[in-house]
Amino acid sequence: MRVLFAAPDALWPVWAPVLTRLAPEMELLRDADPASIDAIIYAPGGPVGDLSPFVNARLVQSLWAGVERIVTNPTLTQPLARMVDPGLARGMAEYCTGWTLRAHLGMDRYAQDGTWRNGLTPPLAQDRRVTILGMGKLGRSVAAMLRGIGFRVGGFSASGRPDDGVEITTDLSCALSRAEILINLLPDTPQTRGLLDANRLALLPQGAWLINPGRGTVLDDAALLAALDRGPLAHAVLDVFRAEPLPPDHLFWSHSRVTVTPHIAAETRVETAAPVAVENLRRAMAGQPVLHLVDRRKGY
Amino acid sequence: MRVLFAAPDALWPVWAPVLTRLAPEMELLRDADPASIDAIIYAPGGPVGDLSPFVNARLVQSLWAGVERIVTNPTLTQPLARMVDPGLARGMAEYCTGWTLRAHLGMDRYAQDGTWRNGLTPPLAQDRRVTILGMGKLGRSVAAMLRGIGFRVGGFSASGRPDDGVEITTDLSCALSRAEILINLLPDTPQTRGLLDANRLALLPQGAWLINPGRGTVLDDAALLAALDRGPLAHAVLDVFRAEPLPPDHLFWSHSRVTVTPHIAAETRVETAAPVAVENLRRAMAGQPVLHLVDRRKGY
Repeated sequence: MRVLFAAPDALWPVWAPVLTRLAPEMELLRDADPASIDAIIYAPGGPVGDLSPFVNARLVQSLWAGVERIVTNPTLTQPLARMVDPGLARGMAEYCTGWTLRAHLGMDRYAQDGTWRNGLTPPLAQDRRVTILGMGKLGRSVAAMLRGIGFRVGGFSASGRPDDGVEITTDLSCALSRAEILINLLPDTPQTRGLLDANRLALLPQGAWLINPGRGTVLDDAALLAALDRGPLAHAVLDVFRAEPLPPDHLFWSHSRVTVTPHIAAETRVETAAPVAVENLRRAMAGQPVLHLVDRRKGY
Repeated sequence: MRVLFAAPDALWPVWAPVLTRLAPEMELLRDADPASIDAIIYAPGGPVGDLSPFVNARLVQSLWAGVERIVTNPTLTQPLARMVDPGLARGMAEYCTGWTLRAHLGMDRYAQDGTWRNGLTPPLAQDRRVTILGMGKLGRSVAAMLRGIGFRVGGFSASGRPDDGVEITTDLSCALSRAEILINLLPDTPQTRGLLDANRLALLPQGAWLINPGRGTVLDDAALLAALDRGPLAHAVLDVFRAEPLPPDHLFWSHSRVTVTPHIAAETRVETAAPVAVENLRRAMAGQPVLHLVDRRKGY
């Protein structure tokens, strides 16, 4: 099969070796006669804007989970598949667990200044309450990993759909008031925008940590800074923002009790995503149903 | 039973109330005729140096897991039991897992200087090799927690005793050469003293992290600093030292790629340890086999 790699140049050295190793039968091309192309691997910012000359392409396989930039392209007539990377939920769980343990263990209390500060033994995880806002696929993956370590995990979800071993509430105030460590994984919807405002942040226990790898829009930025300066928040770890990259002069960068990470918690990983792309290309070639087909009317 | 509390004064208010609540039949004493004593609760730095007058003591129950300071005492003729605190193993696993995730996720690469550094996606834990030196009870507890997250865990132990799901080797060179993250939990014995010297540290992969919550004597301090400065070590997290508290002018405090924590990984937690001590004292009184008996020849 002849497959066009229609993605930014920087992605070629990352993806091409893995894709061609997994599918030796595939001819992976960066430029070719459009009519000769059987399928397209796509990421935003690449060389292809007009998809109409690819009259024989049986599939456009996105490398990204989010397809909002291509699904609205009027020249797209081919079937479009999203990337659903099985590694993404694991990566998110590892990020959240790592930062939860950093908060739990009080790692940041040990300044490297020559002072031997013992007597600060943290409780065991079994005596530490962690609350997850948003108990979809990612929230459940995070909850399972935290429970494996022993944390007391509670979840908030609008649906209240139960999860094995995690106490789920539909009462946000209740969920916040118990959160020694709060992890936000709510999606960006009209209902969640600005949800964590001054009144809601004030419900957290004194000394709470906030970890936000979900969506930046859920937070009221000014209220967050006030909750750090005047309580109850001890520290915020932020991975997502209203504007990205976070501008260099944003107050989050300079606040001593804010840690900024550059939208890394939910990265697509080539090792786990490339096999999904290859599987889908083979299905398209064989005339079988493809995985994660985008519903053009819904947009995802 | 008459039990002597032979531990530093500071421990009395912590332990005595819990021990006497759990074992109302026990007479817990701080001073008594040695010949009248049935058993001894021991921690280093307490009032008893010469154990020979305790001719009727059926057990010396250490409050610490590490017994190197008493096992070499030539006056010790009584059976000696180490503390195996079920909370200690959990606490140790939480400490090691927290620092392993900090290394794994590359948390320290994100300086808070206004620079958005993406493109540094770590592999998933399933593609990260962690090696544990010492696969006793603590090593197994750490291994189980790390495996729960997905890490590829290998272990080194002199005995080679197998552990479910962990590849155990008796070949130290082999264990070191695979250790992207190395966790030392070896006890302090004549065989382990200075084991991690310049030649052995040189076997680690470039960029490896060392986490040492085991014993400070296992490391050659100068070799460690050299391995940080000239490779292959990227970072060392040290919780135990040849001298404790670590002197304020020690080079470990000022090295930018050493993190010092003040011997907190293996804190005995009285809530979980006191029941073990009580169980063992009762076994000794009843002539039953005691738990966690120290092998005097091995030294642990």
